[in-house]
Amino acid sequence: MNRPARAGNGSRPVRVGLLGSGVVGSQVIRLLTDHRDELAARVGAPLELAAVAVRRPHKHPEVPAHLLTTDAAALAARADIDVVVEVMGGIEPTKEVLLTALRRGAGVVTANKALLAEDGAALYEAADAAGADLYFEAAVAGAIPLIRPLRESLAGDRISRIMGIVNGTTNFILSAMTASGDSYAGALKEATRLGYAEADPTADVDGFDAAAKAAILASVGFHTRVAAADVYREGIGDVSAADILAADEIGCVIKLLAICERVSGDGAGGAGSESVSARVHPVMLPRHHPLASVDGAYNAVYVEAEAAGTLMFYGPGAGGAPTASAVLGDLVAVARNQVSGGRGPRESAYADLSIRPIGDVPTRYHISLDVQDRAGVLAAVATAFAEAGVSIATVRQQGRGEDAALVLVTHTAPDAALSATVARLTELDAVRQVASVMRVMGEI
Amino acid sequence: MNRPARAGNGSRPVRVGLLGSGVVGSQVIRLLTDHRDELAARVGAPLELAAVAVRRPHKHPEVPAHLLTTDAAALAARADIDVVVEVMGGIEPTKEVLLTALRRGAGVVTANKALLAEDGAALYEAADAAGADLYFEAAVAGAIPLIRPLRESLAGDRISRIMGIVNGTTNFILSAMTASGDSYAGALKEATRLGYAEADPTADVDGFDAAAKAAILASVGFHTRVAAADVYREGIGDVSAADILAADEIGCVIKLLAICERVSGDGAGGAGSESVSARVHPVMLPRHHPLASVDGAYNAVYVEAEAAGTLMFYGPGAGGAPTASAVLGDLVAVARNQVSGGRGPRESAYADLSIRPIGDVPTRYHISLDVQDRAGVLAAVATAFAEAGVSIATVRQQGRGEDAALVLVTHTAPDAALSATVARLTELDAVRQVASVMRVMGEI
Repeated sequence: MNRPARAGNGSRPVRVGLLGSGVVGSQVIRLLTDHRDELAARVGAPLELAAVAVRRPHKHPEVPAHLLTTDAAALAARADIDVVVEVMGGIEPTKEVLLTALRRGAGVVTANKALLAEDGAALYEAADAAGADLYFEAAVAGAIPLIRPLRESLAGDRISRIMGIVNGTTNFILSAMTASGDSYAGALKEATRLGYAEADPTADVDGFDAAAKAAILASVGFHTRVAAADVYREGIGDVSAADILAADEIGCVIKLLAICERVSGDGAGGAGSESVSARVHPVMLPRHHPLASVDGAYNAVYVEAEAAGTLMFYGPGAGGAPTASAVLGDLVAVARNQVSGGRGPRESAYADLSIRPIGDVPTRYHISLDVQDRAGVLAAVATAFAEAGVSIATVRQQGRGEDAALVLVTHTAPDAALSATVARLTELDAVRQVASVMRVMGEI
Repeated sequence: MNRPARAGNGSRPVRVGLLGSGVVGSQVIRLLTDHRDELAARVGAPLELAAVAVRRPHKHPEVPAHLLTTDAAALAARADIDVVVEVMGGIEPTKEVLLTALRRGAGVVTANKALLAEDGAALYEAADAAGADLYFEAAVAGAIPLIRPLRESLAGDRISRIMGIVNGTTNFILSAMTASGDSYAGALKEATRLGYAEADPTADVDGFDAAAKAAILASVGFHTRVAAADVYREGIGDVSAADILAADEIGCVIKLLAICERVSGDGAGGAGSESVSARVHPVMLPRHHPLASVDGAYNAVYVEAEAAGTLMFYGPGAGGAPTASAVLGDLVAVARNQVSGGRGPRESAYADLSIRPIGDVPTRYHISLDVQDRAGVLAAVATAFAEAGVSIATVRQQGRGEDAALVLVTHTAPDAALSATVARLTELDAVRQVASVMRVMGEI
């Protein structure tokens, strides 16, 4: 369905309804006001803030009183609102509210990663049925342009891997642990004190936030549907000071990465079939890798494509103003489409790839073992690997006596074979303790 | 003017005419062939290669013979060709050929930075008059998405500075000089031997290539018209091993940067007026700056925007396949617009900013002086700075006797005042020689 260009092309304002006026929403209002003339020139028509839905109107002096409403659903249904900008978050009733807007053909700009990752398909389908635009640059990595490069700039290429630091809280904590040798608990406490972690940090430290972003990146990058529930997820709660030290000893740092990969070869889909792995877990990453030096609350995403090669995008991953910048970029695009009678890219899910379970994904492990200092220990350990069909890349013996340790890095093997090997090692008499287990990315 | 969606929406192929089949063009053909089905799914209609214009048809076995022509102008005029992809380069007759295509409403995708920087306005105006799309992601920094992020993702923000390594040849040479202590001549010879520099390296080493890219980045980023002739330009031919060493001593590396800045304050336009500085010259950059570690033939562009903060984009800046990836991304966008009846962003030059001459641009200098080792030298030097109204940030005396040197870094001052100071220094009896002069960016 193609809607014609709006009547009064270029003269009538594009009317914007804003859902939410918190950290991001208030910045959206500021940018709409401060850059009014510039935005009008870029869109080809003025952008007019027509209504703002909030829960507690008396708490929003930044919004002109006559624009305030508490009824988000009614706002989305208003025929005189051309674009709905959603920065209120949550799954329900937000989903129903956005569906209402899309079904009547209004454009939607959303920063709601959780909703997109849980049920983006419903939104896409409603947008497509009505010929409406659905933009969501702000949902992943704040102001860093990622969705547009993935779904537009690289639309003629074939992306093989997307790998990124997409959660500032966990990156801040891991950077602090690396810099200070602090424990996870200590670094988390400091992050909370400085406002980098929320009072309940679960969504960040357990990887839920990164997993939602991984689902969105995999969907857009691989032209297939990936939901948050499809993403394998491990947080950083088990990363110890010993892990950080072990990483340092092999020239690595530990990062929580969202990793989206095309995986070929034998899997659940049979030989030669292609599938997608989307996962979030801590990894040891060589210090020379471009992502390794991304510290603190910054985000960065590394993209490998067949023709383009390796690209990296870097910037602030959160914050009111950066996220509002991404929202405004989308708003300009949607408004410009409405003025010119065009449409942005639709959902592209033709590839319909299956999700590779983590056990079938080829990974590499770094394993530190506290072992007895006696002959035959290495042989026993090596046998455990061999029996699981896992090949060892490097092995290093450290210390003697009570402090004897074996540090191993494997070659690539199915993750299930690697975790089975670790389980087997814990049962060996020669192994006192498995001190550290972590996946490895990049050439070490 | 809004064209309606094409008849046969989604069924009739979008027909592509290719101008040039060299390093980039042949990769465009390969991608069109290899990814035929995926591209059709992404566009909503098949992309069909309808004609390829080359100078010597017998040299192009990669092109089906019946598609070959030597008449680029006739190809651009063919009514059955929906999109013209230009990767043949040159100013004339290329400009006339592209104008022919745009005037009849065909979309144009071009990688021609020289043409865009020389007379992009003519192309934009023809595109606008006919309601045709003009895309040029491949013109700057190969596969790195830059044009789309600048003109779309950041469309709701206000960019203050764009600063980048946009020429791989010069970056390779400077990286080699830094790593090996080699002279400029030696590093250039090695770059030529390895194929990183052309037999006639003028366009690269004298900064013409980077200046064309700076013109494009400034135009798109600041919504104003900047031509190559507006860009102040210094190449790397005068960078010496002594400069590299001097940079190293203050924790810097030397990079050839394209710098585009909004400049406020007193200038030719009067107090408070805003203008644009676009320039290409070597700078000393602190080692901790994200651009400092971009080595070899890689490109990276650093963008500062009011709300988004600082972003960086990194990747291969040249090469057949990466450039073809950028071309294909644009081709998909133009074709999708044609299928859906929409249009991409037009030229946005409403800001109409004046160009700040280099003399009026605030810069900082690093200056190494060989001086006589006697009392009063520093006083004489300091007086020369003071008389020019230039404030000194740091000064360091090195060595004694014949080897006495003064190393100074200034505060920010108009570039003309700084260069006048250097001229004055050369006339001082106490100064034997001005050993190294270079602009400095970033906090050192």
